[in-house]
Amino acid sequence: MTPSAPQVLAFDIFGTVVDWHGSVAREVDAMNLGVSGDAFALAWRAGYQPAMRRVTAGELGWTLIDDLHRMILDEVLAVFGVTQLDEQQKRHLNKVWHRLDPWPDSVPGLTRLKSRFTICTLSNGNIGLLANMAKRAGLPWDCVLSAELFRAYKPDPATYLGVARVFDVAPAQVMLVAAHQDDLAGARACGLQTAYIERPLEFGAAHPKDVSAQPLNTWHASSIAHLADLLGC
Amino acid sequence: MTPSAPQVLAFDIFGTVVDWHGSVAREVDAMNLGVSGDAFALAWRAGYQPAMRRVTAGELGWTLIDDLHRMILDEVLAVFGVTQLDEQQKRHLNKVWHRLDPWPDSVPGLTRLKSRFTICTLSNGNIGLLANMAKRAGLPWDCVLSAELFRAYKPDPATYLGVARVFDVAPAQVMLVAAHQDDLAGARACGLQTAYIERPLEFGAAHPKDVSAQPLNTWHASSIAHLADLLGC
Repeated sequence: MTPSAPQVLAFDIFGTVVDWHGSVAREVDAMNLGVSGDAFALAWRAGYQPAMRRVTAGELGWTLIDDLHRMILDEVLAVFGVTQLDEQQKRHLNKVWHRLDPWPDSVPGLTRLKSRFTICTLSNGNIGLLANMAKRAGLPWDCVLSAELFRAYKPDPATYLGVARVFDVAPAQVMLVAAHQDDLAGARACGLQTAYIERPLEFGAAHPKDVSAQPLNTWHASSIAHLADLLGC
Repeated sequence: MTPSAPQVLAFDIFGTVVDWHGSVAREVDAMNLGVSGDAFALAWRAGYQPAMRRVTAGELGWTLIDDLHRMILDEVLAVFGVTQLDEQQKRHLNKVWHRLDPWPDSVPGLTRLKSRFTICTLSNGNIGLLANMAKRAGLPWDCVLSAELFRAYKPDPATYLGVARVFDVAPAQVMLVAAHQDDLAGARACGLQTAYIERPLEFGAAHPKDVSAQPLNTWHASSIAHLADLLGC
């Protein structure tokens, strides 16, 4: 049975639309800090879920991703023994997450999908981060939605259901598009449609990830451009 | 003294970027309800500020503009003696505020300004309304910001200062662009730059409004395209 068409496509961002690993690693390597950009990017990202869990558990009050990224950065710099950066350099490096490059299929794929659907972000990244990223990379969002609006991080149901509420549609008229099965499972539990995007190199060429199909998803695509093919755009 | 350039231009929407009076009046006239579209549009809009004041005063809990518009619509329909609309027709009519047409200079002017600045909405309209409007009208926002994010209606300082907070810039690096002096005064009191846009026909050709310059504004422009001229875009 073909599912009825959604009206809104909500996109996870880090890993799904943009290549956080490659972008962070390239920028760190270019700084000649004497550390591996690959290892540094992985360590920084590894602090992401635990930091959000501290917020969700109430151990930290509501904290934007820019500020969580900075807390993790300070720890990672210490672990890697990087002591030569001044405050201004650290602030600039922290905003590398605003300067992530899209995967090559992202802009053309989103542009095709935008012709038929409302396309928005649904990211744990804060609104300023997502807007700056979109402006730099040319990501053609109809709307930038973020955990910041709902004051809850994915996979809190308030985020998935919040997209439906913002657009005044039923949850089944929203499709979450993501490269992460746990994110999609959270959306599915709220009644959203789901599309998995294969990003086997999310963690870098040295660390390929499993991109097997999960039959419970509505769609499984090798790229955002492939999703546009599947949805007839 | 030339003021330093802002980084973010935040736009008021109703009246400044889109022609609410003409759009609502045309749609009401086309419905052949036996009422004047001009008078109906003015009556609907007249309920807007009082409804937001009920929220700000705490008489109503936080309520989105879509819902305030519906409350006012029900009153206006009663006043005008319109009884023939069913629930689905009322819901559709209420969303005329998602279908407002831009002034002729808005899309070209915004497109020019976007090449140099981050451009966003700062409207009391809810996010879904603003996103639907932008998609239909081709308004090229970098980001849709709304009172809904700040849970406060303009002229609450939380809205003007919220734009600066979202983009992590100083208030003076944000410019509010609006066709309403009271909105600009609220922004100026928070340290934002301000640009007034002349919209003499905001209330319709039969009700021209005063568009005199207020010397306290940073800029005074006859249109958004003229503002782009003034800002060198």
